[in-house]
Amino acid sequence: MFAQQRLMTLMGAQLTRVALGEVDVSLPYRHDLGQQTGALHAGTVAAIADTAAGLAALSMMPEGSGVASVEFKINFLAPAIGAHFVAKGRVVRAGKTITVSTADVIADGERVVATMLATMIRRA
Amino acid sequence: MFAQQRLMTLMGAQLTRVALGEVDVSLPYRHDLGQQTGALHAGTVAAIADTAAGLAALSMMPEGSGVASVEFKINFLAPAIGAHFVAKGRVVRAGKTITVSTADVIADGERVVATMLATMIRRA
Amino acid sequence: MFAQQRLMTLMGAQLTRVALGEVDVSLPYRHDLGQQTGALHAGTVAAIADTAAGLAALSMMPEGSGVASVEFKINFLAPAIGAHFVAKGRVVRAGKTITVSTADVIADGERVVATMLATMIRRA
Amino acid sequence: MFAQQRLMTLMGAQLTRVALGEVDVSLPYRHDLGQQTGALHAGTVAAIADTAAGLAALSMMPEGSGVASVEFKINFLAPAIGAHFVAKGRVVRAGKTITVSTADVIADGERVVATMLATMIRRA
Repeated sequence: MFAQQRLMTLMGAQLTRVALGEVDVSLPYRHDLGQQTGALHAGTVAAIADTAAGLAALSMMPEGSGVASVEFKINFLAPAIGAHFVAKGRVVRAGKTITVSTADVIADGERVVATMLATMIRRA
Repeated sequence: MFAQQRLMTLMGAQLTRVALGEVDVSLPYRHDLGQQTGALHAGTVAAIADTAAGLAALSMMPEGSGVASVEFKINFLAPAIGAHFVAKGRVVRAGKTITVSTADVIADGERVVATMLATMIRRA
Repeated sequence: MFAQQRLMTLMGAQLTRVALGEVDVSLPYRHDLGQQTGALHAGTVAAIADTAAGLAALSMMPEGSGVASVEFKINFLAPAIGAHFVAKGRVVRAGKTITVSTADVIADGERVVATMLATMIRRA
Repeated sequence: MFAQQRLMTLMGAQLTRVALGEVDVSLPYRHDLGQQTGALHAGTVAAIADTAAGLAALSMMPEGSGVASVEFKINFLAPAIGAHFVAKGRVVRAGKTITVSTADVIADGERVVATMLATMIRRA
């Protein structure tokens, strides 16, 4: 599913961990993903968090399922400044139709710069 | 401010309307912003909506202000399929520190594919 | 369905309008629903908004359906001070399973004190 | 501050734990807080979660501060059925003006029935 998300390719993001209900998406800093201030754009941060939250949800769905974002909410906790970012998606509750996930975006392995709470839906 | 958002350049988005409390960001469909399904990635949709909501907020702040996203929530109402997308940012309530905006993302001038409710903060 | 929501009875809220995709819930100010400041508690405001958003969604579902809140997000725009409040629920997009609604909470017929964006699910 | 929240008194909620950045609000089930189904109303669940998230934020602010909810988002993970509920508010990031908190609502000490992500603002 990750390979099908061309935006991730455009951004240079990679899938670096897939476990049951847990997915990490990694993103090296790149000048063109950000703003004049040197921080990543909120949209970049949201994109990797949404991907991680969605794939974490997908990891707990039956084989052959697809996943779509119903909605998400994301708080930006600190400027997304760093050399390397990881969005860590985790399932909070897996349901038959609806799965709720979170994703934290962590800069340089230590600072949480954003946190997402997302609702995902299974597509048969 | 739009020119400083390099992610918008990367995506090929353009600022097509700026009025007091109202900003439009336009985005032609591009293969690399989407998914295998032909729809834009949720992150792409969120990025243009956040930019429109943030710049709408900025348009009502005192000269020389900056703006940052405190948080946003976005519902995806339909697959983001189309040739052309516009994110229409509108201020709901402008405060001294906090401004609340919405942004609807419209495909091909007629279908609302996503709606955002966002909290923006003024940076002096 | 409104009659089944005992919290609405406890709060003294009433269903004052039901149309296709549009529901109003009215609430007279009462001392015990608020805070020392004289404003309604955020929880009171959220409760009537959620009820209005949910019943608006239900009004567009097939006869015999039930409705449950998947999630909602609410921004508090101004202190909820007034003698009378109306939560105006409106459907943004009705789907087979998932319906997205908004609700604005209006004080004394003129000031929007809160705005909600909610995801509702049909229960067969 | 809890004593000033009359809605908590009306609902029969109690403040059962206050530590730095961590506050618990407890609520015994009561027939009039719920719905025909026996579950608490989403508004009841949101009210105790908002109170716990807000007081957790307040616990990290300077003496003499007040706190107000800018916005919150809450996901309902399971029907709020049980004899006793605890909303556990926790600070995610404390800032000078804006503090981000979460609150989980737990039924009978074991089931998470809702999770909130909230933005609080300091009132001097």
